[in-house]
Amino acid sequence: MALYDLNVGEVITVLGTFSFAVSGAFAAMQKRLDVFGVLIIAFATSVGGGTLRDILIGDTPVFWLKNANYSLLILITGILAMIFWKKIKMLKITLFLFDSLGLGFFTVVGLQKGLAFDLSPGICVALGTVTGCFGGIVRDVLLNNIPLIFRKEIYATACIIGGLVYLLLRYLDLDEAIVKFTAVAVVFLIRIVAVKYQLSLPRIY
Amino acid sequence: MALYDLNVGEVITVLGTFSFAVSGAFAAMQKRLDVFGVLIIAFATSVGGGTLRDILIGDTPVFWLKNANYSLLILITGILAMIFWKKIKMLKITLFLFDSLGLGFFTVVGLQKGLAFDLSPGICVALGTVTGCFGGIVRDVLLNNIPLIFRKEIYATACIIGGLVYLLLRYLDLDEAIVKFTAVAVVFLIRIVAVKYQLSLPRIY
Amino acid sequence: MALYDLNVGEVITVLGTFSFAVSGAFAAMQKRLDVFGVLIIAFATSVGGGTLRDILIGDTPVFWLKNANYSLLILITGILAMIFWKKIKMLKITLFLFDSLGLGFFTVVGLQKGLAFDLSPGICVALGTVTGCFGGIVRDVLLNNIPLIFRKEIYATACIIGGLVYLLLRYLDLDEAIVKFTAVAVVFLIRIVAVKYQLSLPRIY
Repeated sequence: MALYDLNVGEVITVLGTFSFAVSGAFAAMQKRLDVFGVLIIAFATSVGGGTLRDILIGDTPVFWLKNANYSLLILITGILAMIFWKKIKMLKITLFLFDSLGLGFFTVVGLQKGLAFDLSPGICVALGTVTGCFGGIVRDVLLNNIPLIFRKEIYATACIIGGLVYLLLRYLDLDEAIVKFTAVAVVFLIRIVAVKYQLSLPRIY
Repeated sequence: MALYDLNVGEVITVLGTFSFAVSGAFAAMQKRLDVFGVLIIAFATSVGGGTLRDILIGDTPVFWLKNANYSLLILITGILAMIFWKKIKMLKITLFLFDSLGLGFFTVVGLQKGLAFDLSPGICVALGTVTGCFGGIVRDVLLNNIPLIFRKEIYATACIIGGLVYLLLRYLDLDEAIVKFTAVAVVFLIRIVAVKYQLSLPRIY
Repeated sequence: MALYDLNVGEVITVLGTFSFAVSGAFAAMQKRLDVFGVLIIAFATSVGGGTLRDILIGDTPVFWLKNANYSLLILITGILAMIFWKKIKMLKITLFLFDSLGLGFFTVVGLQKGLAFDLSPGICVALGTVTGCFGGIVRDVLLNNIPLIFRKEIYATACIIGGLVYLLLRYLDLDEAIVKFTAVAVVFLIRIVAVKYQLSLPRIY
């Protein structure tokens, strides 16, 4: 976190950590885990993508070992999620929205770290996609759900398109915050549209 | 293993490696895996937690690549477990006891490594918990069981309490061996009491 | 890839990447994943073993982050696999053959990297086995299949025997290409013979 942009990048990371913690906590409560199980799943979902990113790049100790604030943020988010659990209607939609937001934020987080490590643009898009998707995969595998990534709607494809938009806007030399939040919005909106209109990629069989 | 205390720390690591190898071998035999499958599961269970710990911290090559004795210990343990398999009564209880022992030993192993790398105390407790729990999670996922960590009784919570006891006793400047074995005993006893009296954490739903 | 032999070693890596990409793509099409899902599984199967090897050793960023050609090779292989999918008869056998070839290639890839990092010979065999087996485990776990490694026929054992043959031939100072391709052939042939004659290791229960 010291090597690259602290302001916008950090805000994106915090928002992504928060979003995935909420989605993990909600998914765990749907499966009726106990209080601690909810916090573990929130933690695993939230740090999963960034942990894989840091390990693949070799930037260790991984981010949440270096900065205890992430764990604290996830703990507080998990407790708040449990408190407000019964007051939220349309849980499925809430879970879906926070999963999609986290996907967008973490795609950008992965991309910016790849660029900070001077990896080639195509590889950065791949790294952003892996960073975005992995937290949700961990959550679904631990809860014994079929990973969202393999269900019908476009998922990883949203990360790839968002990543390409990021690279394009960055090339146009726009303001950093605009570039990053636009890329997040692209990932988020593609997910919303894909699920709403049940868009899916063709199959071969 | 050269960077921090060799004596007590190494004894704890060897005992944890042995305990988890036994628990992995027994769980694999319950699932009727072949001879080699039993050895693989014993290996994965035994090195899983420490491998994740080394990867997260960035202390690579990981411990079992640097020191072949761990693989040898697991091999011998696995073979002995297969030889004595039919002579042991109450297999479920034996498996549970060795899993709980391994949990205690590896929580301490993770903690002492975190402290050796100058991580903050709260993060060290998290690292100890991850180190303690991960081997059992790998074992259960590979064998297609529901991870013990998500069943009703207190599991990761035992690691956290044991980790806090470790930090407290260490702060009191007691003898190293007393501090470490007390922490192991705390994790072990919490597991025993939790399962015996079916203690569990509350759920939110 | 710069630290050790570029010629034979690189050819082996490319062939292994190709073989596992084919096996991953075919397994994904059998499960009726969409176009993108097929490419993801091909990617995960293909880079899985080498990624774990690089992470365990600490040679990061991992190989496919440093060299975009691997991702390109997997992309093209995946697309070709989808195009020729319907024209191939005996899909199960084709999948099995490419899985066995990939197993052989990656066992050698893991071994040569372990030797390049001066690990002890026994540890190199273990690293080769892990590198060879992990891609297939990832593929099977993501597709919710029982990992091939735990089914009846000899699997990881083939890697270990191939690894020992590699070390033996290398000790005899034969030509590098002969040593490596012989080891690949040994792994491949043990798999073929084991499945054809349904050889399996004994069980303890």
